Amino acid sequence: MLRRAILAVCAGAIWTSCFAETGVSTAMAQDPHAFVNTLMPEPEHLTVESGYLPLTTSFTAATSSFHNARLDNAIHRMLVEFENNTGLQIDLQPSEANTATLLITVGGPGEAIQGLDEDESYSLDVTSDGARLKAATVVGAMRGLQTFLQLVQNDGSSYFVPSVSIQDSPRFRWRGLMIDCSRHFEPIPVIKRELDGMAAVKLNVFHWHLTDDQGFRIESKVFPKLTEMGSDGQYYTQAQAREIVAYARARGIRVVPEFDMPGHTQSWFVGYPELTSDPGPYQVEHQYGIFDPVMDPTRESTYVFLDKFIGEMAAIFPDAYMHIGGDENNGVQWKNNPRIQRFMKAHNLHGTAALQTYFNQKVMAILKKHHKRMVGWDEILAPGLTRTAVIQSWRGGASLTAAAKQGYDAILSSGYYLDQIQSAEQHYLVDPIPANTDMTPEEQAHILGGEACMWGEHVTPFTIDSRIWPRTAAIAERLWSPQNVNNVDDMYRRLWVEDLRLEGLGLTQISYEGVALRQLAGTMDIGPLRKLASVVQPVGFEERYQLQHTSQLTPMDHLIDAVPPDPPSRHAMQVLVKNYLANHDAKDEAELEKIFAEWIAAGPKALAMMQKAPRLNAAEPKATELVELGTMGQQALRYISKQQNAPAGWADAKLALIQQAKTPYGKVRFTVLGPMTELVKAVQ
Amino acid sequence: MLRRAILAVCAGAIWTSCFAETGVSTAMAQDPHAFVNTLMPEPEHLTVESGYLPLTTSFTAATSSFHNARLDNAIHRMLVEFENNTGLQIDLQPSEANTATLLITVGGPGEAIQGLDEDESYSLDVTSDGARLKAATVVGAMRGLQTFLQLVQNDGSSYFVPSVSIQDSPRFRWRGLMIDCSRHFEPIPVIKRELDGMAAVKLNVFHWHLTDDQGFRIESKVFPKLTEMGSDGQYYTQAQAREIVAYARARGIRVVPEFDMPGHTQSWFVGYPELTSDPGPYQVEHQYGIFDPVMDPTRESTYVFLDKFIGEMAAIFPDAYMHIGGDENNGVQWKNNPRIQRFMKAHNLHGTAALQTYFNQKVMAILKKHHKRMVGWDEILAPGLTRTAVIQSWRGGASLTAAAKQGYDAILSSGYYLDQIQSAEQHYLVDPIPANTDMTPEEQAHILGGEACMWGEHVTPFTIDSRIWPRTAAIAERLWSPQNVNNVDDMYRRLWVEDLRLEGLGLTQISYEGVALRQLAGTMDIGPLRKLASVVQPVGFEERYQLQHTSQLTPMDHLIDAVPPDPPSRHAMQVLVKNYLANHDAKDEAELEKIFAEWIAAGPKALAMMQKAPRLNAAEPKATELVELGTMGQQALRYISKQQNAPAGWADAKLALIQQAKTPYGKVRFTVLGPMTELVKAVQ
Repeated sequence: MLRRAILAVCAGAIWTSCFAETGVSTAMAQDPHAFVNTLMPEPEHLTVESGYLPLTTSFTAATSSFHNARLDNAIHRMLVEFENNTGLQIDLQPSEANTATLLITVGGPGEAIQGLDEDESYSLDVTSDGARLKAATVVGAMRGLQTFLQLVQNDGSSYFVPSVSIQDSPRFRWRGLMIDCSRHFEPIPVIKRELDGMAAVKLNVFHWHLTDDQGFRIESKVFPKLTEMGSDGQYYTQAQAREIVAYARARGIRVVPEFDMPGHTQSWFVGYPELTSDPGPYQVEHQYGIFDPVMDPTRESTYVFLDKFIGEMAAIFPDAYMHIGGDENNGVQWKNNPRIQRFMKAHNLHGTAALQTYFNQKVMAILKKHHKRMVGWDEILAPGLTRTAVIQSWRGGASLTAAAKQGYDAILSSGYYLDQIQSAEQHYLVDPIPANTDMTPEEQAHILGGEACMWGEHVTPFTIDSRIWPRTAAIAERLWSPQNVNNVDDMYRRLWVEDLRLEGLGLTQISYEGVALRQLAGTMDIGPLRKLASVVQPVGFEERYQLQHTSQLTPMDHLIDAVPPDPPSRHAMQVLVKNYLANHDAKDEAELEKIFAEWIAAGPKALAMMQKAPRLNAAEPKATELVELGTMGQQALRYISKQQNAPAGWADAKLALIQQAKTPYGKVRFTVLGPMTELVKAVQ
Repeated sequence: MLRRAILAVCAGAIWTSCFAETGVSTAMAQDPHAFVNTLMPEPEHLTVESGYLPLTTSFTAATSSFHNARLDNAIHRMLVEFENNTGLQIDLQPSEANTATLLITVGGPGEAIQGLDEDESYSLDVTSDGARLKAATVVGAMRGLQTFLQLVQNDGSSYFVPSVSIQDSPRFRWRGLMIDCSRHFEPIPVIKRELDGMAAVKLNVFHWHLTDDQGFRIESKVFPKLTEMGSDGQYYTQAQAREIVAYARARGIRVVPEFDMPGHTQSWFVGYPELTSDPGPYQVEHQYGIFDPVMDPTRESTYVFLDKFIGEMAAIFPDAYMHIGGDENNGVQWKNNPRIQRFMKAHNLHGTAALQTYFNQKVMAILKKHHKRMVGWDEILAPGLTRTAVIQSWRGGASLTAAAKQGYDAILSSGYYLDQIQSAEQHYLVDPIPANTDMTPEEQAHILGGEACMWGEHVTPFTIDSRIWPRTAAIAERLWSPQNVNNVDDMYRRLWVEDLRLEGLGLTQISYEGVALRQLAGTMDIGPLRKLASVVQPVGFEERYQLQHTSQLTPMDHLIDAVPPDPPSRHAMQVLVKNYLANHDAKDEAELEKIFAEWIAAGPKALAMMQKAPRLNAAEPKATELVELGTMGQQALRYISKQQNAPAGWADAKLALIQQAKTPYGKVRFTVLGPMTELVKAVQ
């Protein structure tokens, strides 16, 4: 019998971080067969044993007892990915159960339409003799198959899976990603690869924001003018939507469509102005912002329309939930319409929120008729709203708690807005139920989970991957793993491994930077430019909007679109400087020295490239500043290591330089100014 | 009036080549507004004038007189690409003709179904006042729009188009790319991006190899078992095929489908064994090679089947041509079938070729009934074949000439096989009608053009782009441009620019190497490995097949799949060493010195990475050899520059090393051994 050693999650992992060009290297252990935890999300319970399962071309998988096409397909996909990750040609057909390397025992199919209560738990036991995956449902088995793939390691010449025992189930039942396909249309292949990424990190809800002022993206056969006149020709056919629903279901992911109403509806009104509170006419809105057009909630014809439309959509999207948006209705059209004002008085509806709740209640009845439960953004939380509505909190965590305390189920998105260009760390530390919550257990039970939100103003099919990934993997871990899994350094260590795995699925979040820099610079030799790019990141949503006054027509092909948010440099530099200042380790000093020398060498070359490339001109000051930062870093290292005092005024001058370097140019800002400040401040 | 200076094509281009990591930089001129010819393919007539057209956000395009949806869409795509290439937000709607920056004057729509005689000519005149594109047809305008995009340059801070006058028309009417989607299935998005690349270099025929032993890839509603049983679930629906036909037509590209018969048909027989010459049963063939299964040409039922099938396909593929394959029928099943042998005797058919011609003639009648002209591989060229058949030569240029001399129209593919891993140079110098041809003008008129062939044994959706591009751009130039456009150095100078432009369209031929190396090495820090990868390329088709015994089930995720054929290093190193040996220029010497130092530095680091990555182990000797080659290069430079004699035996030892280094490891070989040999031989 194997000797079992229970390890605290991650505690056994020995890792080195090499902050070179891209700042990352994968984990390496001393014993080539030692378990290195690169699981993301972390499982609930993990026991590491001695020994390992060698992976060879004779690897086989089989189900014992129950299987169906959905499970068979999931296993087949896992085996293909196994081949992609190892190069080992294996038998993709199911083997005999009694000889299978990986035996998958599943209780049954799970829910006919995957719902909130789908059992996603599984257990996975790996020994040198084989692997045993057990789950109550097919979806549970899918989660375990992803874990199995994440366990694959190599010893330099062969692949293996270390002996482990895992019992796992999610902390939250609703773990989503919203993608806004209205403000920028994302073609079907893009949606599919995002679903692949979601499945890899065990997310289970794809919230599809299909309609907004800037475009109506789903074909209606009942109301064909919705896309004929409201989509600029960019929309999903019903067949494509069904294809996405099936693709998602095959990966254990629900699809919750959003039809934002009564505001954010300008694209509806181009073809159907009779829905509005102002006769129009209307055009598809190409600007961004909050606009006046809003449905007329006082006319029965509006609900007749919505009943038909929702009925049509309910047949395409089988999920039990449907999202009706409900956000950012400024009420202007309602205030300006005397007939609506009279209606409000007659019905004793005081103010915009009250009328919107009247509308919401009518829509809720329609949804109920079509067997759907309502989800809406937190604006719908107003007196009179029936308790079956689900509140999606986006304007702050307070609305989440408020909803739960009032007895509504709720989902957190505040803190998970990907377009804000926050760090993975910032998202990771946002907890739907923080440790210090004042909610009662009953209230906590109303918190269903959370959703990362990818609003579409500033993303294209080319850039969306790097805006979603890898940061969403950190959010996925927050929503799946136990609350006490919150070590940021360890999260990043695993995040960069997951980043590579996501790239292996076909996502472009790593490769696009090179593509874009080559296009911008007009050359294949982008080395120095890439060095500069590695230490900058885009400004946030609001700042970009202010700087550029972006609209749907703005080309998204500048430096800001090339560089990813929260690149490896940010956290790696932070850790490196912190460690150096704490320990004055020669190895850290040498690494910093190397980094600063690279900045100094790259700066002038990058500048020369930028001067030749019109779209890079605006960011030229960053190249000069890179040299200044490198020089400052070298000087700081020298003073610190030789325990010399800097000349009078040196620190102030350098801090002023850092202050200047905070100004974005070309709509990008440095990722390393925090640790550079620490370094300067450490000089006597 | 502008002073016109007629330049020989390319003669005015000043360029520098920087053989760094990827070996290429784009062309740079002294006068920032001087014309730099990066057109590919070269136009027939080009006149360069003084002056230039500035490109700004006020750029507009319009049609004068005729336009239709196909033209409008082509202009819209051009404008979007213009935005992608410049970052300038322009009006995507047509402007007034009298104020348009680019005015497009088109005579008419062209052929209802684009055919061999479609007029693809155009003229393009650019002055500082504007640009004028004229064409007889929409397809001609499309060709001119691509030229316009290729003319965009920048002066470091602004974009412009130099003043030029171009009159252009293609040398050959049939300029194709064949993609085999049977041996590896290529999803629709892959096909679309290849079509985008084809349109960029003015190719006009997509030859779609849809059926073969290894998979039947097109849905038949008449014979559903063809895909149900013969495709392993991977096939195009009829709706998808129509989508591709429309996508291609929108880009001025014909789609010629191929249904290979009577051999290469094993996938048909899984569902319909009654078609064969041996009762079977059959499975989809997952091995590669030439197999015995062949249709039974002696039964009328075969032709009844084919009549129905071809009729169904004719409704999907409107092109006037249909390809029936006809290659590699080994005749074994016919020889082994007594009934077929009796039939041959009874009909006085002597041998396999005669019976196949009997079959071909029957099929030709069916094609004719469905208004299709037959195309076949050169095996169909046998006595008795009707002269309306078109011969596609693949087994050598001789069959092309033979076909033309016998009065058949013919297409060249011999010399354009992309899976052979030849250089762009080798393909480029293959001319369907060489300067020294012995064909009469009448015979030459039978040569319709040529087709690059991408056979599918060793390509996946991830690797296919780098196998097709950029080499196919060189073939496209051979088929479009005048015969005397054949300067290899200048072709490569322009090819690397086109390579970047193709990447800008969404093709992955540059970026995939990085993706794959990261996956293979399991790290983002692939610098040294990339340095090694930059000087190796895959072994050819036959050699890989021999080394690996590949089948359809072989994972295509090894080093050989990561590295592109004919990388920039090959030609750049050749030119650099040649120039150095001719002129002993200090700059060339310094560049070589830098390259060799990089090899020596990268080798050990690459080796360390390879030792940690199971799939890279096999190529480890290449890392050691890289250091040896670098050392050898440094020594050679020293002997040559100092005019010293090398020690006795030095050259022999080094030549022996080069000889050893020719051995492929990890199924890749060096690209630089030719110039290294020259360098060693130049040492006294």
